[in-house]
Amino acid sequence: MTMPAPSPPRFPFAEVTTLAASGPGHFHAEVNDQWTIGGKPNGGYLLALLGRAAVFVSQHGHVIAASAHYLRSPETGPVAIEAEVLRTGRAASHVRARMCQDGRACVEALVTTSQLDGATAPYWDYGSPEVSQVAYEDCQRLASRSPSGMRVAIMEQIEVRLEPETSGFTTGVPSGRGELRGWLSLPNGESFDPTSLLFAVDAFPPATFDIEFAGWVPTLELTVYVRALPMPGPVRVLQRAQLIDAQRVDESCFIWDHRGRLVAHATQLAGIRLG
Amino acid sequence: MTMPAPSPPRFPFAEVTTLAASGPGHFHAEVNDQWTIGGKPNGGYLLALLGRAAVFVSQHGHVIAASAHYLRSPETGPVAIEAEVLRTGRAASHVRARMCQDGRACVEALVTTSQLDGATAPYWDYGSPEVSQVAYEDCQRLASRSPSGMRVAIMEQIEVRLEPETSGFTTGVPSGRGELRGWLSLPNGESFDPTSLLFAVDAFPPATFDIEFAGWVPTLELTVYVRALPMPGPVRVLQRAQLIDAQRVDESCFIWDHRGRLVAHATQLAGIRLG
Repeated sequence: MTMPAPSPPRFPFAEVTTLAASGPGHFHAEVNDQWTIGGKPNGGYLLALLGRAAVFVSQHGHVIAASAHYLRSPETGPVAIEAEVLRTGRAASHVRARMCQDGRACVEALVTTSQLDGATAPYWDYGSPEVSQVAYEDCQRLASRSPSGMRVAIMEQIEVRLEPETSGFTTGVPSGRGELRGWLSLPNGESFDPTSLLFAVDAFPPATFDIEFAGWVPTLELTVYVRALPMPGPVRVLQRAQLIDAQRVDESCFIWDHRGRLVAHATQLAGIRLG
Repeated sequence: MTMPAPSPPRFPFAEVTTLAASGPGHFHAEVNDQWTIGGKPNGGYLLALLGRAAVFVSQHGHVIAASAHYLRSPETGPVAIEAEVLRTGRAASHVRARMCQDGRACVEALVTTSQLDGATAPYWDYGSPEVSQVAYEDCQRLASRSPSGMRVAIMEQIEVRLEPETSGFTTGVPSGRGELRGWLSLPNGESFDPTSLLFAVDAFPPATFDIEFAGWVPTLELTVYVRALPMPGPVRVLQRAQLIDAQRVDESCFIWDHRGRLVAHATQLAGIRLG
């Protein structure tokens, strides 16, 4: 007789992105050691921390555009965050935010904030990818081990569910299309908002896993546009690779709420040991 | 008998992006009044000025990623540019660059520089859009008047040539696909490099012109990835709208050199009077 494995403790998004103000535009935060991949903090999670600081100092409540350049990965534990308003406009504010650890800059981002209105509807969306129709229940939850056996602790916190057609890499049979589709939930089913969408666009494994497994794919740059307020509930995700050239890959990520509205779009440039 | 209209004077890219160093990391530049749309400087041109400053202060010669947030449009004429190295790594450097006019911040950008190698080849490119096959000679040069009659002076400097299938907006008949395809040359056929590619990704008219003409479409954020060194000669451009929602649109731009290699990819978020 074996005992069932205990459920790992859950660290909700709101908790792991808590900021403590330490002066005007200065904050302390604690990078959670369970929101990690092989012990390294997730890049979207770090950007969400900067986004939260940007909203805090700005007169507008929602991030609509954020661009992060990753200088060096911080260790988990305490970090200092600074956010400075560059301009406050009527419709939007512009903020520069940066994360430091032990006095060394780790991530710097430019963030535009505005006020999103829950009542709008898309005017034209024929340029967006088609929304998949595969249901949440028909997608399999991704385990917290990478194909190389590395612990991906964050997968015990969030729930990434992959459509069967795009989960071949988990059994060593990538499709070659460079595309992962599925669903994402936060711990305890917490609702998404513009700040957690900054994380959502980097929550899936690299789409290159569906081409060839190549270990660590460190993000160099991540740009996110938040296009609408998402409905409560899990979000649908499409992560797509575009070009691998000279040991770099660029990927796009599309996020729809469960009613099928495109709520966020991101691109990232990452390093990869291919090409 | 009428005299032929005189050719407008040409202001080459190298000339309109000249920087004069005014101190460590400080530069003066002159925003050219012919690289404008309705008197406003082109956003990609402003980013190229910041990119040039970033390369100047960094130990790596090529911009590979740049993200600009547009705070306010500068007037043509003198601007001050500051560039600060945030980190110098072995493979890449990270720089923050900003443009000010009369002491007011206009554009701020984060720039990653590295060294691109002319000898590499793409490893995997199945995620990129198909390259159009329409020849340069079969595309029509865009005139220097917008559909509303506004003077687009920059079109007398650069050469934008549109594929007939995507030039319907010039005669009031947009296709509705939200896509412009064609070719781009710099004045006097100057070759492209990573810095001028930062301009190239914003040189075409908004792809929304192929949906509905809506006047001024001001760029809020522009992110560019330079993926390879382009061959000399004109570049092929695809400008594509994705989603118009809540008076904002996001667009992608793809640039291939004339041999069909993807050399740059960009996304931008812009304001629009639709939706």
